[in-house]
Amino acid sequence: MDVLTGEREYFKGIDKIKYEGPESDNPLAFKYYNPEKRVGDKTMQEHLHFAVAYWHSFSSRLADPFGPGTRELPWLQSKDPIQRARDKMDAAFEFMTKMGLKYFCFHDVDLVDEAETIAESERRLQSIVDYAKEKKKESGIELLWGTANLFSHPRYMNGAGTNPVFEVVAHAGAQLKRAIDATIELDGHNYVFWGGREGYMTLLNTQMKKEKDHYAQLLTMARDYARKNGFKGNFFVEPKPMEPMKQLYDTDAATVLQFLREYDLMDDFKLNIEANHATLALHSFEHELQVAADAGMLGSIDANRGDEQNGWDTDQFPTKLNDVTRAMLVILEAGGLQGGGINFDAKLTRNSTDLEDMFHAHIGAMDTFARGLMAADDILRNSSYSKLRKERYATFENEEGKRFVNGSMSLEDLRRIAVKNGEPQQVSGRQEFFENLLNTHIR
Amino acid sequence: MDVLTGEREYFKGIDKIKYEGPESDNPLAFKYYNPEKRVGDKTMQEHLHFAVAYWHSFSSRLADPFGPGTRELPWLQSKDPIQRARDKMDAAFEFMTKMGLKYFCFHDVDLVDEAETIAESERRLQSIVDYAKEKKKESGIELLWGTANLFSHPRYMNGAGTNPVFEVVAHAGAQLKRAIDATIELDGHNYVFWGGREGYMTLLNTQMKKEKDHYAQLLTMARDYARKNGFKGNFFVEPKPMEPMKQLYDTDAATVLQFLREYDLMDDFKLNIEANHATLALHSFEHELQVAADAGMLGSIDANRGDEQNGWDTDQFPTKLNDVTRAMLVILEAGGLQGGGINFDAKLTRNSTDLEDMFHAHIGAMDTFARGLMAADDILRNSSYSKLRKERYATFENEEGKRFVNGSMSLEDLRRIAVKNGEPQQVSGRQEFFENLLNTHIR
Amino acid sequence: MDVLTGEREYFKGIDKIKYEGPESDNPLAFKYYNPEKRVGDKTMQEHLHFAVAYWHSFSSRLADPFGPGTRELPWLQSKDPIQRARDKMDAAFEFMTKMGLKYFCFHDVDLVDEAETIAESERRLQSIVDYAKEKKKESGIELLWGTANLFSHPRYMNGAGTNPVFEVVAHAGAQLKRAIDATIELDGHNYVFWGGREGYMTLLNTQMKKEKDHYAQLLTMARDYARKNGFKGNFFVEPKPMEPMKQLYDTDAATVLQFLREYDLMDDFKLNIEANHATLALHSFEHELQVAADAGMLGSIDANRGDEQNGWDTDQFPTKLNDVTRAMLVILEAGGLQGGGINFDAKLTRNSTDLEDMFHAHIGAMDTFARGLMAADDILRNSSYSKLRKERYATFENEEGKRFVNGSMSLEDLRRIAVKNGEPQQVSGRQEFFENLLNTHIR
Amino acid sequence: MDVLTGEREYFKGIDKIKYEGPESDNPLAFKYYNPEKRVGDKTMQEHLHFAVAYWHSFSSRLADPFGPGTRELPWLQSKDPIQRARDKMDAAFEFMTKMGLKYFCFHDVDLVDEAETIAESERRLQSIVDYAKEKKKESGIELLWGTANLFSHPRYMNGAGTNPVFEVVAHAGAQLKRAIDATIELDGHNYVFWGGREGYMTLLNTQMKKEKDHYAQLLTMARDYARKNGFKGNFFVEPKPMEPMKQLYDTDAATVLQFLREYDLMDDFKLNIEANHATLALHSFEHELQVAADAGMLGSIDANRGDEQNGWDTDQFPTKLNDVTRAMLVILEAGGLQGGGINFDAKLTRNSTDLEDMFHAHIGAMDTFARGLMAADDILRNSSYSKLRKERYATFENEEGKRFVNGSMSLEDLRRIAVKNGEPQQVSGRQEFFENLLNTHIR
Repeated sequence: MDVLTGEREYFKGIDKIKYEGPESDNPLAFKYYNPEKRVGDKTMQEHLHFAVAYWHSFSSRLADPFGPGTRELPWLQSKDPIQRARDKMDAAFEFMTKMGLKYFCFHDVDLVDEAETIAESERRLQSIVDYAKEKKKESGIELLWGTANLFSHPRYMNGAGTNPVFEVVAHAGAQLKRAIDATIELDGHNYVFWGGREGYMTLLNTQMKKEKDHYAQLLTMARDYARKNGFKGNFFVEPKPMEPMKQLYDTDAATVLQFLREYDLMDDFKLNIEANHATLALHSFEHELQVAADAGMLGSIDANRGDEQNGWDTDQFPTKLNDVTRAMLVILEAGGLQGGGINFDAKLTRNSTDLEDMFHAHIGAMDTFARGLMAADDILRNSSYSKLRKERYATFENEEGKRFVNGSMSLEDLRRIAVKNGEPQQVSGRQEFFENLLNTHIR
Repeated sequence: MDVLTGEREYFKGIDKIKYEGPESDNPLAFKYYNPEKRVGDKTMQEHLHFAVAYWHSFSSRLADPFGPGTRELPWLQSKDPIQRARDKMDAAFEFMTKMGLKYFCFHDVDLVDEAETIAESERRLQSIVDYAKEKKKESGIELLWGTANLFSHPRYMNGAGTNPVFEVVAHAGAQLKRAIDATIELDGHNYVFWGGREGYMTLLNTQMKKEKDHYAQLLTMARDYARKNGFKGNFFVEPKPMEPMKQLYDTDAATVLQFLREYDLMDDFKLNIEANHATLALHSFEHELQVAADAGMLGSIDANRGDEQNGWDTDQFPTKLNDVTRAMLVILEAGGLQGGGINFDAKLTRNSTDLEDMFHAHIGAMDTFARGLMAADDILRNSSYSKLRKERYATFENEEGKRFVNGSMSLEDLRRIAVKNGEPQQVSGRQEFFENLLNTHIR
Repeated sequence: MDVLTGEREYFKGIDKIKYEGPESDNPLAFKYYNPEKRVGDKTMQEHLHFAVAYWHSFSSRLADPFGPGTRELPWLQSKDPIQRARDKMDAAFEFMTKMGLKYFCFHDVDLVDEAETIAESERRLQSIVDYAKEKKKESGIELLWGTANLFSHPRYMNGAGTNPVFEVVAHAGAQLKRAIDATIELDGHNYVFWGGREGYMTLLNTQMKKEKDHYAQLLTMARDYARKNGFKGNFFVEPKPMEPMKQLYDTDAATVLQFLREYDLMDDFKLNIEANHATLALHSFEHELQVAADAGMLGSIDANRGDEQNGWDTDQFPTKLNDVTRAMLVILEAGGLQGGGINFDAKLTRNSTDLEDMFHAHIGAMDTFARGLMAADDILRNSSYSKLRKERYATFENEEGKRFVNGSMSLEDLRRIAVKNGEPQQVSGRQEFFENLLNTHIR
Repeated sequence: MDVLTGEREYFKGIDKIKYEGPESDNPLAFKYYNPEKRVGDKTMQEHLHFAVAYWHSFSSRLADPFGPGTRELPWLQSKDPIQRARDKMDAAFEFMTKMGLKYFCFHDVDLVDEAETIAESERRLQSIVDYAKEKKKESGIELLWGTANLFSHPRYMNGAGTNPVFEVVAHAGAQLKRAIDATIELDGHNYVFWGGREGYMTLLNTQMKKEKDHYAQLLTMARDYARKNGFKGNFFVEPKPMEPMKQLYDTDAATVLQFLREYDLMDDFKLNIEANHATLALHSFEHELQVAADAGMLGSIDANRGDEQNGWDTDQFPTKLNDVTRAMLVILEAGGLQGGGINFDAKLTRNSTDLEDMFHAHIGAMDTFARGLMAADDILRNSSYSKLRKERYATFENEEGKRFVNGSMSLEDLRRIAVKNGEPQQVSGRQEFFENLLNTHIR
């Protein structure tokens, strides 16, 4: 992938980031991520499908609830929204090609600012989509997924699809259509729903069931529209338990599965699991991944991390070796992600204000995932891990165990067997052994 | 209900607890709970169906992880397990009749200690069940629900229904059968499953999908067995996110619904929602109740409270007026609990060692629920609450809104409507107004 | 207090809020707060000293991390910063006089926007301070406390007093001086420090000890400057554990006391305790109040509430009856607040967009505190509460107990006494009794 | 260190655990911990001073709140308490010598069970102390610290030193004396206080200030007694925020420092910081270490980990590479621990029931600390870390910065400097760069 700059080079003095190996002390080089290196039957690149998140990396000035943004974004200087959108896209493709990131993800309003009217918003989006097509072609970069931002605009303060007022739901539909159109036009691999205002601030003013019915209706209409217009990719729902609402309906993986089952959406939808959202839901990242994988629904991940001590949405870049290795273990055992990739839905700390910091952040995260991938692959292929896990459940391969699994037994049968066998032998869970095994494969 | 003592009176000096009204300063009287008082179309008693939890109130000596039990239980002095079980039952019925508690709940091992063999455990249980039938008859007290303790015995340390070893699952089946038999014989209104070891300590040694398949198999077998033997009541599953395992499979209401749907158990099972478990899952109690109610699955509740600052299972008696009123509001709007009641799954603080403390604890909790009930009823019948909530969604009763709800619209339709209407008018959520309305009805 | 409007009336249609008693169903009336009603030896007004928070109520448009502000503030329409500041002040005094709020609190930048240069910022502040003096005189309203916002401006992103770069500390000093000048000129009763950026995002780049030394230095200089210029009021430090920084140095009450002791600032400083910050620190509000009170340092409170399930700074209006009553109990027992009052550092929910919502929010909170005050007073004067608490420690009034307290005993003495007395008698903590006692006094 | 067994070998089939290097796949070998390897100016052994915790490793059967213990402890079979204590000690010294653990820590009741009377408890303790002296001599193993268990016995349910009844405080004093005597006799390097019941369950029944006065009195008496009897070591206080009490007085490092300052105990006491307790207090482990280090009070650590998702005291063995490396960085920068070591206050998971699991647990934890030590040492000596941190604060080495630090400036001076300099230049905090630097040194 060659570096692709626009009229102006935004990240001057930083060339394409190269793999230099673990011994390098160049902070602007990969120490572990080597895209062409084979791990098992695929290259690192093919395993990991890294994507940049347009919003955090190119739109956000790093405001927080106690202060405005700190970060200068030289590509956001033009007064003209279309020119500003093109400059931003130039910066994005320069960054991606310098980083070797082959995918990107966006919300409609990341590409270009929403206008006063729907018609004008559509014109703007079309204009920047045209430009994106050129940039994609020149660079070979692909769209991992698109989505509509149905949570920032004040009109959605009481919900988008779940808004108590139909006129707002109609607006959400219009915006959804626009974002789906853009995704299709850009050959997006997937389309994501994150229902950031689909929830409530207080149950006292909320009829939850009615709101969920409406939300399901909107997802169904979106699916039908996209399929009718030729979209072949996956739809993803991204769970999150809270923030900005007190309670979000797509709380966690299991809750979303319950919803998709209830409204008969299991065939077209899968899950996009975010590490930080798992933390907020008091789950481990690997738990959420496993829940999705067990249902055959592990579509994609939003890679980041929350803060274990603080309870809000910190969206930091992932650098915890143990956690990422555990995640990669689940992903590899599940046979990889279904259609998705590893999207860095992560933001710089508010005081990381150098343009260079974006590079450090992505390099560190990509190296961490590369180490996790290598460790997980090594564990699965060169250790006793899989064998021990299999043996742990071996009694269900015996005759009686099989009959139980097949549903050919009654409680009376179980009682009879229990009486016959007497007290079972104690079997250690060996948790500490397994944790050590994990650690010794992190190199 | 007359006081029913056995050979010995355990709570000497304490008579039947009476309703004396809010002005009373007698700590051993009800200030708000007046069983015969009508609230709406039912008496308080009929609304609330209070039950005592056999385990906390009659079995537990209040040990905690840092020290053994502190509480003297005079009914546990006999060396003979059957006599000890009868003494305990005498104490229980004395307490219930003094408190005016018309229901009780138990695990098999609360009634009588498990023995070395299955056969002997069955004999013991039968013996105490026979005694319980007499006591029930004498007192008019009923069994709200029974359950099997499939989490305390060391054999279940890696799971009961989800144990990786089939022989342990067989033991769980034998015990389950025994508890179901006892429940049926005692005309139990319901049967509860709480999967305290159905989960994992570490995913590293766990095949979650396989374990859940087995768990569903066991629930199915239990249902079939009970139905075959004439049980007409409900089955409940009680969600809890964690403790004693790092992660429990029946995490919260939505997770259990997802499980019941996946394994086709929605027809016979409903949910038993515990306040404290909601807290541990980072949900409000009313949220969990609403999730269950919206699915038509609100069976029963375990009334207690967690500690908002501490993250473990404190199971305190419920005394928070606002929280209980919110819960009662959801319950009343849902048309009441389906088959269940309000079971005080709550324990005394380790240093509440006077026998009298049990009375204070239950009186306070019952009064709190009585106030919550009156407040909720008053809100629903004498305030603008229901009207305002209905009006909030009024646009979905209009022609276009209805067509959306009915699934007769497409994204293009929504876009057209949004373009036509322009930016919708802002509508306040009025959260603070609703919170005030709630508070002013708590008297 | 007469209603004081400026040239324009901002809250049209809302008159002075009156006390109408618990039976009123007028949402724009007090049901419990009756300023002139005597509770013990003081009126409610004298006990409670309610204050409005300028920032939340008159400056904030209710943006959150996922969307911009939703709330129209008609007083912020002028393009001229001074005129805008005067309009805002008109709105504030209209609101306060309509609500019967006798106090207000501000950060320098709430009064008027900061300018490009220090000199111009000073001129602006002086101009609006002059106007405030007129409004204060006309209305009789007083300044509870002033403070400097040393956390929002990007220059403070790495700290204000704790910034690693001296030039930034100097800027903090300049702003601090300006805010102290304004507070003195407006006869502020107190001056508050909230160190919203005094902490770190990561220890990896931080020398904590050095930063705290600098912070103490700045507080010392501020104290000296204010005293030199005639300020007779209290200085308060407001603890908070986190947000916006990962870790704030003024973590909780005990941490601030440790800091004040270490740097010899105990004489001039006291604590300003916020309910929501207690929640974030995993303490109960009453715990933080008690820690401050026990050190003779309970200066003032920021009244609000956090969300028990979510971990970020929700700053909601306080409506939990049990929690507020417990807080008032500590405050009354401590003999009241030292120099401060009850400042509603609370914001409307983002979707509470009607101007009327501000009234509902304050009415509900004031009524809740009034109920808490009456309940606490009743408990202290008309129940066994104080007597039982005293009796619990009675053995320390005996001869041996007293000698222990006075430090006239050795470990050998204790051993001798223990041997002599044998195992002590068990004494119940009676927690449930005490909780019931509290509830029965909430009317 | 030679393996030292008693009459019976408890850990048959397991020899002395050896260092075999990272490439070894022997689970019963060290991959990183090589006691004699030099890291900087000391050996690993000298840096780390690993200790075994007598309670978790030799006394606990792994009960949890939902079930009794699961673990067979062959050394606890004798009916005679003294013989049982000797067998346990044999097992402990066998384990320590096989593991190469040079230190141990105990509570009095870990060594031998408490008896009915104080006199008999003293005799028992003396007997086992005599035996311990022999074992110490034979093995070369040393006592890192001793302590008294003042939290398990029911008599302490309302507090030990903070109990509202003086007679209980006297009992605490008697037990404290006994544990100090044992520690002195065994040449204990340090003596620890962990106030597991020094706190409250509810403030409603508690006079916190009085209780803290008493607690300080008891610590003072203990210090005086120990010094009088020749104890030269450090006294440590171990902070913990909660559990078993709702609130513990020694909440976190800052709270304990505040307490020690208030009661003038800073000279003899230091802190014993536990990782898991930091987690419960919502602090990072490194934060608590840094707070202690900055006060010159970093005495010792209890090495373990909590669970980031669950809120109770899981006391797991530490295996998180990033967290341990950050801890070692603080410790190395502080010049090491003052008098203490790394005590594995960690327990096996309840289902880790093989005796071998104890070895896996300790091996994994020791290897993790060894990796953390090597990484931290490498960062400090071979990277830009220290230089960059120093440069960040360089302006305080300039003339004006120095004058600020020395307290020779006023607010007016700061204002003058700020006006002169204008808006300071923005300086990135570079958090992501620092995090990457850390990760690349974990090998």
